[in-house]
Amino acid sequence: MKKIINGTEEVVEQMIEGLAKSHPDLIHRIEGTRVLARNEARPGKVGLVSGGGSGHEPAHAGYVGKGMLSAAVCGDVFTSPTPDQIYEAIKASDQGKGVLLIVKNYTGDVMNFDMAADLADADDIKVAQVIVDDDIAVEDSTFTTGRRGVAGTVLVHKILGAAAEAGAALEDLEALGKKLVSAIKTLGVALSPCTVPEVGHPGFELKDDEIELGIGIHGEPGFKREKVMPSKELAKQLYFQLQKEHQLKADDKVVVLVNGMGATPLMEQYIFANDVHELLADAHVEVAETLVGDYMTSLDMAGISLTILKLEDEKWLDMIHLPVATIAW
Amino acid sequence: MKKIINGTEEVVEQMIEGLAKSHPDLIHRIEGTRVLARNEARPGKVGLVSGGGSGHEPAHAGYVGKGMLSAAVCGDVFTSPTPDQIYEAIKASDQGKGVLLIVKNYTGDVMNFDMAADLADADDIKVAQVIVDDDIAVEDSTFTTGRRGVAGTVLVHKILGAAAEAGAALEDLEALGKKLVSAIKTLGVALSPCTVPEVGHPGFELKDDEIELGIGIHGEPGFKREKVMPSKELAKQLYFQLQKEHQLKADDKVVVLVNGMGATPLMEQYIFANDVHELLADAHVEVAETLVGDYMTSLDMAGISLTILKLEDEKWLDMIHLPVATIAW
Repeated sequence: MKKIINGTEEVVEQMIEGLAKSHPDLIHRIEGTRVLARNEARPGKVGLVSGGGSGHEPAHAGYVGKGMLSAAVCGDVFTSPTPDQIYEAIKASDQGKGVLLIVKNYTGDVMNFDMAADLADADDIKVAQVIVDDDIAVEDSTFTTGRRGVAGTVLVHKILGAAAEAGAALEDLEALGKKLVSAIKTLGVALSPCTVPEVGHPGFELKDDEIELGIGIHGEPGFKREKVMPSKELAKQLYFQLQKEHQLKADDKVVVLVNGMGATPLMEQYIFANDVHELLADAHVEVAETLVGDYMTSLDMAGISLTILKLEDEKWLDMIHLPVATIAW
Repeated sequence: MKKIINGTEEVVEQMIEGLAKSHPDLIHRIEGTRVLARNEARPGKVGLVSGGGSGHEPAHAGYVGKGMLSAAVCGDVFTSPTPDQIYEAIKASDQGKGVLLIVKNYTGDVMNFDMAADLADADDIKVAQVIVDDDIAVEDSTFTTGRRGVAGTVLVHKILGAAAEAGAALEDLEALGKKLVSAIKTLGVALSPCTVPEVGHPGFELKDDEIELGIGIHGEPGFKREKVMPSKELAKQLYFQLQKEHQLKADDKVVVLVNGMGATPLMEQYIFANDVHELLADAHVEVAETLVGDYMTSLDMAGISLTILKLEDEKWLDMIHLPVATIAW
């Protein structure tokens, strides 16, 4: 295992310190916790809290700041943060109007965010939750009942962040979040596995000429192993399933997110984006916005995911375009 | 070789198309060329053109837009763009006030940008050049006489971009560029090699427990092979050489850029950034700004570089902070 780290048990602690020291203008660490919170709290705003296992950077700390999240909680690598840590983030984010939790659908996360919500409830902090399950690859998986939450979560952060900044109430944000989740679908592929520092070896194996379609962001199994294929073919394999799931038709408007898994060069991401654009043009689906880059990674995994948000409401696009002050958006 | 590409000869063409289709609000391709230019031209502004071999994305097309570059020229992978293509970028960027070329110091680039400048001169377009040679690792290298131009180039783009936007004249930009170049130093390390698509195999080899210090962004040799070491030790190896070269002392102010080479997880980049911050704190050097991420990559190379800009002028910091409209800054 070749990694730029110190002790394998210190990776999350030192990453949090690195984030806080590098961006003191945007975020700060809540002392004694694994919570990174935005500096500029706008009084009277509903708080937005997300988080999960580490190893998906820039998610979620990279999305903390004006116009997006109020705070992010960093669990151990690929491990849910504990309820007490999530509760610290809730307390730091509450300004009397309540706090919305944005949770990726993994059994551990759902359970721990739920327990944190109970703690908050006992302290009279209003809490609501949005569970993101955008990965259409498989039902029920290694760490999940139902579908997994993956890169599409970042679009939920962005749009709800804009709505919260504009003064939306907790129940309205919860309702909007649920609408968004049903309008966002993702499918990914791995070219190589990733190595959790404390484990020290890859989480699965792929032959030199093999890829895995439908992979999860922790290396959970997908739905099919195939030989390496051209980007055009890969784009078809992912896009057509998303098109079907969304029941996309001519003149629909979408937002496209091409997400690198951590070790995929931007050159490859843009080649893939070009192929996706050609498929969308063929289908006469209008692309209102495209994002390309490492938004939700899996440590050093090489691979890519494709997220399509069906724009059911034009206002969502304005919300995506609203300027933010974060590290990574 | 596992890559998300179509034909190996089409990678640059399709990447350019992907960039243009994904970000039509920011940039456009000048038809029939390998030039990506900003949409919003501010009349009367000096043009800023950069470029070079592809494979370093988001450099340089990711830095085209309001507040940074006017246009970027994309050569073949790790190969200088041709003079005619550079000249197209110059023509597209000239608004009667001249064009400044920002060139990384490689023999091929220097020669071709120079020939393009001659073409422009023959057409009465005023052109000046700034050659960036921030890599302190070695003198004279595989493709270079003198020192190589690497990640620090992005800081030159940013500060000159702000100055150009504010209306600086060509000769002032050239003078400022030369000052900046002498104030920017970089040193990098590779954990793994990169594979040029058309070549199909890694450009060099590193053993499972080996790293190479002082590596170039095309995999050119560094100054030392070592066993894998902790991030703290690596930070020392890079920082102390930069400190010496800069003659940094207590109360100096710096901007720090921790740059991922393409396949290095952000988690590792922030752990390294934390270690660099500790060294700077020990030396009582003030960090005015930190950037962490993939700014100047080497395809799928795993590795990192550390750039330190010595802030000889406080105004440079304001110029770094000036908002831009680009893909990647």
